[in-house]
Amino acid sequence: MGISHFERDQDAARHDLLEQYRSVRMMTEELASPLAIEDYGLQVMADASPPKWHLAHTTWFFETFVLNPNGFEAFDPAYAYLFNSYYETVGSFWPRDQRGHLSRPTVEEIYRYRGVVNERMEHFISTSDSDRFSAMMPVIVLGLNHEQQHQELLLTDIHYNLSVNPLQPAYRNLPEPPRRAATPARWNTWEGGLVEIGYRGGDFSFDNEKPTHRHWLEPFKMQNRLVTNREYREFMDDEGYQTPTLWLSAGWYRVQSHQWEAPLYWFERDGEWHQYTLGGGRTMDWEAPVSHVSFFEADAFARWAGKRLCHEAEWEVAAPKGSLGPANLLESGWYTTVGAEDSAEQGRLLQMFGDVWEWTQSSYAAYPGYRPVEGALGEYNGKFMSGQQVLRGGSCLTPRGHIRDTYRNFFPPEARWQFSGIRLADDG
Amino acid sequence: MGISHFERDQDAARHDLLEQYRSVRMMTEELASPLAIEDYGLQVMADASPPKWHLAHTTWFFETFVLNPNGFEAFDPAYAYLFNSYYETVGSFWPRDQRGHLSRPTVEEIYRYRGVVNERMEHFISTSDSDRFSAMMPVIVLGLNHEQQHQELLLTDIHYNLSVNPLQPAYRNLPEPPRRAATPARWNTWEGGLVEIGYRGGDFSFDNEKPTHRHWLEPFKMQNRLVTNREYREFMDDEGYQTPTLWLSAGWYRVQSHQWEAPLYWFERDGEWHQYTLGGGRTMDWEAPVSHVSFFEADAFARWAGKRLCHEAEWEVAAPKGSLGPANLLESGWYTTVGAEDSAEQGRLLQMFGDVWEWTQSSYAAYPGYRPVEGALGEYNGKFMSGQQVLRGGSCLTPRGHIRDTYRNFFPPEARWQFSGIRLADDG
Amino acid sequence: MGISHFERDQDAARHDLLEQYRSVRMMTEELASPLAIEDYGLQVMADASPPKWHLAHTTWFFETFVLNPNGFEAFDPAYAYLFNSYYETVGSFWPRDQRGHLSRPTVEEIYRYRGVVNERMEHFISTSDSDRFSAMMPVIVLGLNHEQQHQELLLTDIHYNLSVNPLQPAYRNLPEPPRRAATPARWNTWEGGLVEIGYRGGDFSFDNEKPTHRHWLEPFKMQNRLVTNREYREFMDDEGYQTPTLWLSAGWYRVQSHQWEAPLYWFERDGEWHQYTLGGGRTMDWEAPVSHVSFFEADAFARWAGKRLCHEAEWEVAAPKGSLGPANLLESGWYTTVGAEDSAEQGRLLQMFGDVWEWTQSSYAAYPGYRPVEGALGEYNGKFMSGQQVLRGGSCLTPRGHIRDTYRNFFPPEARWQFSGIRLADDG
Amino acid sequence: MGISHFERDQDAARHDLLEQYRSVRMMTEELASPLAIEDYGLQVMADASPPKWHLAHTTWFFETFVLNPNGFEAFDPAYAYLFNSYYETVGSFWPRDQRGHLSRPTVEEIYRYRGVVNERMEHFISTSDSDRFSAMMPVIVLGLNHEQQHQELLLTDIHYNLSVNPLQPAYRNLPEPPRRAATPARWNTWEGGLVEIGYRGGDFSFDNEKPTHRHWLEPFKMQNRLVTNREYREFMDDEGYQTPTLWLSAGWYRVQSHQWEAPLYWFERDGEWHQYTLGGGRTMDWEAPVSHVSFFEADAFARWAGKRLCHEAEWEVAAPKGSLGPANLLESGWYTTVGAEDSAEQGRLLQMFGDVWEWTQSSYAAYPGYRPVEGALGEYNGKFMSGQQVLRGGSCLTPRGHIRDTYRNFFPPEARWQFSGIRLADDG
Repeated sequence: MGISHFERDQDAARHDLLEQYRSVRMMTEELASPLAIEDYGLQVMADASPPKWHLAHTTWFFETFVLNPNGFEAFDPAYAYLFNSYYETVGSFWPRDQRGHLSRPTVEEIYRYRGVVNERMEHFISTSDSDRFSAMMPVIVLGLNHEQQHQELLLTDIHYNLSVNPLQPAYRNLPEPPRRAATPARWNTWEGGLVEIGYRGGDFSFDNEKPTHRHWLEPFKMQNRLVTNREYREFMDDEGYQTPTLWLSAGWYRVQSHQWEAPLYWFERDGEWHQYTLGGGRTMDWEAPVSHVSFFEADAFARWAGKRLCHEAEWEVAAPKGSLGPANLLESGWYTTVGAEDSAEQGRLLQMFGDVWEWTQSSYAAYPGYRPVEGALGEYNGKFMSGQQVLRGGSCLTPRGHIRDTYRNFFPPEARWQFSGIRLADDG
Repeated sequence: MGISHFERDQDAARHDLLEQYRSVRMMTEELASPLAIEDYGLQVMADASPPKWHLAHTTWFFETFVLNPNGFEAFDPAYAYLFNSYYETVGSFWPRDQRGHLSRPTVEEIYRYRGVVNERMEHFISTSDSDRFSAMMPVIVLGLNHEQQHQELLLTDIHYNLSVNPLQPAYRNLPEPPRRAATPARWNTWEGGLVEIGYRGGDFSFDNEKPTHRHWLEPFKMQNRLVTNREYREFMDDEGYQTPTLWLSAGWYRVQSHQWEAPLYWFERDGEWHQYTLGGGRTMDWEAPVSHVSFFEADAFARWAGKRLCHEAEWEVAAPKGSLGPANLLESGWYTTVGAEDSAEQGRLLQMFGDVWEWTQSSYAAYPGYRPVEGALGEYNGKFMSGQQVLRGGSCLTPRGHIRDTYRNFFPPEARWQFSGIRLADDG
Repeated sequence: MGISHFERDQDAARHDLLEQYRSVRMMTEELASPLAIEDYGLQVMADASPPKWHLAHTTWFFETFVLNPNGFEAFDPAYAYLFNSYYETVGSFWPRDQRGHLSRPTVEEIYRYRGVVNERMEHFISTSDSDRFSAMMPVIVLGLNHEQQHQELLLTDIHYNLSVNPLQPAYRNLPEPPRRAATPARWNTWEGGLVEIGYRGGDFSFDNEKPTHRHWLEPFKMQNRLVTNREYREFMDDEGYQTPTLWLSAGWYRVQSHQWEAPLYWFERDGEWHQYTLGGGRTMDWEAPVSHVSFFEADAFARWAGKRLCHEAEWEVAAPKGSLGPANLLESGWYTTVGAEDSAEQGRLLQMFGDVWEWTQSSYAAYPGYRPVEGALGEYNGKFMSGQQVLRGGSCLTPRGHIRDTYRNFFPPEARWQFSGIRLADDG
Repeated sequence: MGISHFERDQDAARHDLLEQYRSVRMMTEELASPLAIEDYGLQVMADASPPKWHLAHTTWFFETFVLNPNGFEAFDPAYAYLFNSYYETVGSFWPRDQRGHLSRPTVEEIYRYRGVVNERMEHFISTSDSDRFSAMMPVIVLGLNHEQQHQELLLTDIHYNLSVNPLQPAYRNLPEPPRRAATPARWNTWEGGLVEIGYRGGDFSFDNEKPTHRHWLEPFKMQNRLVTNREYREFMDDEGYQTPTLWLSAGWYRVQSHQWEAPLYWFERDGEWHQYTLGGGRTMDWEAPVSHVSFFEADAFARWAGKRLCHEAEWEVAAPKGSLGPANLLESGWYTTVGAEDSAEQGRLLQMFGDVWEWTQSSYAAYPGYRPVEGALGEYNGKFMSGQQVLRGGSCLTPRGHIRDTYRNFFPPEARWQFSGIRLADDG
């Protein structure tokens, strides 16, 4: 994607960066625009931050890591505490599970904050001396990628926070995607062997995608499309949620303690299954990929199907190289999953990018030789390498320019509020 | 107070009631008017409901107990569930500790709800046939008293909900009351004997103030004014919070588990004690009555002072009869406590009404012969007669027309977010 | 009862006290004798202490309050910490909810501790100089009454701690009492007026029974016997546990959060209700008084029956004076409740003493003029006067010599593991 | 090790198995022999089961998986429920965190249970027909390995359960090992490449050690000995527990919520660090390997040291093949860690087996091609492959015959009550 082209010519680089900066920052505000003021402060669980917080935190990122070190005064000194997420290196922070306890600063003040920081950032990008610009450019690019991550979280969080309301408000009046029969499931095979994994290009990537390294793979198979709601429903009808031997021990404990009986956002009305979407409650599209399942559910489904989830290295080897190809990403505007279209190209893997993040059986861990960057930004990824599972491929809420084949997302195995789903794999 | 005059002439009664209805309903909205939209949904602890909820619930009360039984359609059927507080008789209700989880209906919708219900109520009060009016008049009067209670809660709850914010926002720009030396403490004595307790007038009272009944009292003494911040500070300086033998067992447990070291809203800045008020953070007025102490703290303070708290019957016997006299109530506009002014009238009890609710050593219980009213409104008071302590006299947030000598307020012994304070008593 | 006769002649006093000391101390060990070593350390909930702890703590009481101040060395210095219950004045203590975490000292060591302390106590009682003896005699008498309280707790606690075991072990092989039809319910009436309440005799009583004071009572009625299992079953069959309007708010919350559907220890087997007793599981004796109900259940039952619970002053006025009369107390050996026998004497109140502690609607509070004793023993009763309900009359586990008409027991309103039951009262 | 030799000749196999059976079963009882009856039921945290439970559960294993399917009647039908640990396939089970709530069956009854099952097992091993024996032999061998695992847990659990007791009782009077200077730290290097991992022999191994598979390794280094208490103390003195950037995010959260400041069992007395061991409290042996640290602490220490923990494949490649060599295992009798002795053989890795289980940075996961065994025994390992970290090499409580280079132990990253420690590794 375009955000991190490092141009030979610094002027061109400034120009491109400015354009990217404006585009990303505006997109965030566009995504927030359908919200009522009342929605901006809502936090119903610790994981799902208020929209207001996302707007402020992404701004804090630029202020803290670009403007402050370059001599700009703080917009408001209190914000350093209020909108730091988890960077111990730069100071203490307001507790994550209490972000919804703050009615002030108001939404208007947060937009003002964004405006002032934008002005300063644009000034800095345009006019800073050459050395400063070179030093800061990677940080700004990181900040833009960071903001794109929060664009997705802004939507998944407001989805969750509105979902508990009995009125089932829609985030926005959204068109429904076409309903079509999912293409039949087929298996593709890879030979494995000694493969190279990790980001090797010259554009932006996160530190956790590096370094490139060798990995040995046994032969494996992957299914050509994602598991559908219909297929998941068969698992449910076959007492999947009532059969302990299908589950990891920690998963079975979760099923019981949280009384899971279906994916998150599924609900029954008048004897029919529905799904609460960002566009409100809808009847189920059985052919669309199942979403909002935890790793535990994905793993149990695979065991029930007699298959397994893939390793992240397998996924990366199998993923299309070069362009992403057709994919249901944020730009499609559906904000929900869509049935896999039959591909003219036989043997092509469908839905590898977009629709849902695909749970892998890989625990999130450092690649061999991984070193986090120095300083506070070293806290970005490395310190979360415990208790998390890797997901690959992006979702229907991921901006197209943000995802790639080496991209490693991660969430705890019980998380369900992301667009997370299932692709079956097996030994080759 | 004026709300419940039962006029001989129904037309006059309708006229008076209409006026009272408008006045009380407008007062609620006036109290809410300084809030930002963002403040309306805030709930930081289960006890402190969002302002929006107070606005809606008081409206729901009239809709449920007056409009519905008289043939009006529901404004929105979902509100019956969303804004019922605890009336099991009329249906289920949204969990109390999750009132802050609802960003919708929006503030605007709630004000619309109030408007429509007001119109209907005014229509009903003006035009209903004579029998219906007579049947409903006591319910409407109850509804207005109910709304007055929520006016005080609206303020105490927003006080608490804003207090956790490091920005210490003021609810409203409030003038500071004059700081003056509290009048010296003196003791007044009563002989006791067989006294009559409970409401005996013809105006409105809550069912828990009845029936009038006889009670035997031994001789007792009460102090002429409330305990001041200065006096409370002496208790703190004498290691009151570190001395277990001053405390009830449950109180000591609370002190330790919640690390209490001072009244709620006290904080130190630059080595000086301050207090967070509805007008924001202020330096301490040492001569003003101490407030925001729990029953446990009031009881420990009294034990430290070698005295005791009064029984509610003692308080009622000692309270001024007839007019309330000068008192720091809602109408004073201070919204905080004020030092007791020296009284020309020697021996007069000061601050019996207003400033702070006075903790008594009486558990909240039914008076002999008490019967809750029939139907859902019987849930108003009776079912809370367990685990609560009686408080008397109103506070600086209580509307003048709402308080009287027989009025029984009640809160759990650990509650601190109300304007609750201490008056010393002793055996005579 | 005999424990606290203060003889004119000190030698006789020493002799009597020695006898009482031996008798009470031996009774404790006799009650513990059926236990397996494994039972001695069991603590399944915070309220139900291990038998071993009771044996040690009652001994610690004599060591701490009699032997230590009179120059005896500690048996083991660690015991001061391990076996102090809640006396802040004499030092810190091992957490109450972790008493079951200590496998050492062993049971044998605890019996050795008892033996050594007994020897020293007997020596002290027999040979201390006159002044010391006079000073300590009231403390020793208190210590014996204290131990009698723990005898009852030893049994109720082991009852609870064994009850969770699916094997339903019996504490001891116990004979079943005769099953007989309960005498028909009748109402007795009292005129009330100005009555005197509290202990006025010259023998031992706890400080909370004093001082004697006047109290005004309206006319009231009480039922001649306790509520039976059969009557309670009718409440259950009438959906008592499913009807929120029968319950105090806090009670209803408890019913739901703890899924109460019957008294503690009731269980169904093969479609029949049974009861887990100290003698193991038994079929229900429907004519016996219902037991192991909380205050919340007693209150809800009374409301369902259209009656109320009595005030403790009413109970005291109604209680037989002088001798206790026939009563199912510890000495009966049944260790469970027994149906009320028809009394020759018409109008006599049955079961006022023994069978079950009777919940009153009185919160546990200080009597007018109450002053706890000076020093550590002032912590015995006074600091618990918050959040507790008074019970009267003793149970089938109370030693006969321990109970009297002025005796005030107290437990939190949700407590069910004591032998606690219901007597109906009403306005006269 | 000898337990699982599959002899060509079945008679010899029966003979060997009988001998192994007796030897393992007797060892368990020998390890339990120093306990007081009171210790047998103790469970202070969910993870640390009572000794009695270990004795019964290991017996239940043979009864359930060998005797029942071969027609033997249950010793007591209730035991199927009471002593099942987590095998959903064979029925429900008593809650793990309440194993300490059962005083019955008594210790004597459990030993009787062991005796009867032993008799039947020995009868079965000696006299069953050839087909049954062949079918059951692997299950019996698994049962013996299972019991060896519980031998270690029996000791680590009683260690923990006794540790909270202020009396600091010793499990047994144990000799102290010699204190000697640890050999200097040196680095050994491996070239990596394509290696083979997993159990490839013909004797017993757990299913999680299979199948053998290829794995690519980059060059790496490992230290010749374990990290010592002295070295760990330097980390502490350098504010290791106060420096958030040294920790994984989840680890830092744990440090703060549990107020960790030192390894488990370290305590200060008179200004000196001590350690609570199975032999009671002792002064610190600074040269011995640090133990009772969590994965979080091991990881933070390695980061502080500028190194890393090893991957389990690295550990397996580096481990001595063939015989274990000299090692501080259960048979040494020290039951605690011992300083690394200087080795004549330069370049040899010391302490790879015994002393402490070594935390690796590998999440516990299935090997490529892993399939759990069919039926209930498939629950043995596979379902725990989530949220756990692999440890390698055995500890000072592991029986010598039980450990091997391919052995994979696993615990959650916060676990500290095992003998778990640290070996440093680094990129080569």
